[in-house]
Amino acid sequence: MRGKRCAAAASEAGSRAMISLALATLFAAAVQATPAPSPADPIDADWRAIPDDELLVITLGNGKRVVVRLAAALAPQHVANIRTLAKTRWWDGASVYRVQENWVAQWGDATEKKPLPAGVTDRPAAEFDIPAFAPAVRMTRADPYSTASGITAEGWPVATDGKAAWLTHCYGMVGVARDALPSTGSGAELFTPIGQSARRLDRNYTVVGRIVEGMQYFSGLPRSDAPLGVYATEGERLPIVTVRLASDMPATERPHYQYRAADNPRFAAAVRRRENPEAPTVSLGGAAVCDVLPAVRKAP
Amino acid sequence: MRGKRCAAAASEAGSRAMISLALATLFAAAVQATPAPSPADPIDADWRAIPDDELLVITLGNGKRVVVRLAAALAPQHVANIRTLAKTRWWDGASVYRVQENWVAQWGDATEKKPLPAGVTDRPAAEFDIPAFAPAVRMTRADPYSTASGITAEGWPVATDGKAAWLTHCYGMVGVARDALPSTGSGAELFTPIGQSARRLDRNYTVVGRIVEGMQYFSGLPRSDAPLGVYATEGERLPIVTVRLASDMPATERPHYQYRAADNPRFAAAVRRRENPEAPTVSLGGAAVCDVLPAVRKAP
Repeated sequence: MRGKRCAAAASEAGSRAMISLALATLFAAAVQATPAPSPADPIDADWRAIPDDELLVITLGNGKRVVVRLAAALAPQHVANIRTLAKTRWWDGASVYRVQENWVAQWGDATEKKPLPAGVTDRPAAEFDIPAFAPAVRMTRADPYSTASGITAEGWPVATDGKAAWLTHCYGMVGVARDALPSTGSGAELFTPIGQSARRLDRNYTVVGRIVEGMQYFSGLPRSDAPLGVYATEGERLPIVTVRLASDMPATERPHYQYRAADNPRFAAAVRRRENPEAPTVSLGGAAVCDVLPAVRKAP
Repeated sequence: MRGKRCAAAASEAGSRAMISLALATLFAAAVQATPAPSPADPIDADWRAIPDDELLVITLGNGKRVVVRLAAALAPQHVANIRTLAKTRWWDGASVYRVQENWVAQWGDATEKKPLPAGVTDRPAAEFDIPAFAPAVRMTRADPYSTASGITAEGWPVATDGKAAWLTHCYGMVGVARDALPSTGSGAELFTPIGQSARRLDRNYTVVGRIVEGMQYFSGLPRSDAPLGVYATEGERLPIVTVRLASDMPATERPHYQYRAADNPRFAAAVRRRENPEAPTVSLGGAAVCDVLPAVRKAP
């Protein structure tokens, strides 16, 4: 007899669902139990509001929505540019014009010729690094790209080599596309890793945020076989209808999100459990920082 | 003036193309130079044939093809099952029935009720681990999931904790779906990580191969919001028309592939260059084993 065969679950909640499913299969007549609260479960106070002016709402031509949380404190110059680009509606009519397999989806002005609006600095100072390495929870093991990594109180993945510190290019993080070094890019063209994490871009590109809703509408796009994955024809591009800061949207339409804060023992327990899962799962004794990004949810 | 803004290039070849592009922009009148051969470039002898009976050719309902290289020596019991399933045409009429965002695409018999053919062991011994850790090239730094990792002569990504050794769940590797532990799964239901690498599955699932062509036809599929990403309706599934070992295909239709061997100084140089890119790129001093999987190509 075969039961439900799955490659585990992607989330804590999913993991419980699968365990429940397995129990339901093994003990078909048993009543499904509600899982007991875990020391790794967040309490109400762990959910904190994301300010409306740190939410970028991208409405796509297919009616779907992608929401980016901006790392306003960690890449202030580029986020200032991005806010101005949104306020001036510069991206309205833009598109997702590059989708490269196991690499990135990139959006903005496909022609790369549209003049930037007043108030946007074309060549801001590079913000490849952040001021300091200050995670609330450190990963137990280093990773190949740093000597230490962790999650800040505000939920951002960060790494250090003992001197510099930086935001990491995890799946779903948002980076600023640019020319060859030492250019930094204005923020008008943005990308997100859609395959394996793009950690080798760390310290070489400015990270400005993280997609907190709708990532699947970028990751599930058809890949282009053209050079660098740039769609060869206009028809392949996914139109972007509007890009707005939530703070600029009418109050009735404005979405509200909360992130799970990392500066509490519940989140630390969740990271440790991910690093050391209980038997019969074989524990590997560690996990990558990109695998423990805190949850983000719509405000209840 | 803005040039072509890109989030770097995903491959060595792409990287050169972009550098050439940058040069062409900087020196518009200059003749574009052919890059000099690099110590990291493969020579002809580095390309080795993949045996026809280690290639699984999946033909999809949309006319596209996905090709899996089987790790026959590293998961022999499960690969034996997979060969029998292909020979008996068990998968013809199957489907990709689960696509979970930033996790896996899974295929096989969506009902999970189709009887297995004679000769397929429903509960083979687990092959979560491989006999020994024997990479041809070791990664300079450990990663969060192991104490050492590297690439075998035959091009497989492997890791160790100093005692056991295993194949790693990189993006595009193929794993065997299963019930709750200690089940190992027959190989009838298979999955591949489509987002960030799924390294936390290492030592908990049997890895049987790697997708070497057509990964984008799985990774670019619409994600399901249903539990565990299992498509809620039959219409969402991507039909699988046939699954064949290349060795069972007519000679005229049979594809031939080669992998880049890792037991040579050229591949080692390529890994070191990835770990320590040249200035002005900021070097991080390391790279993940999943980021240096050797190239596979069609036989010229």
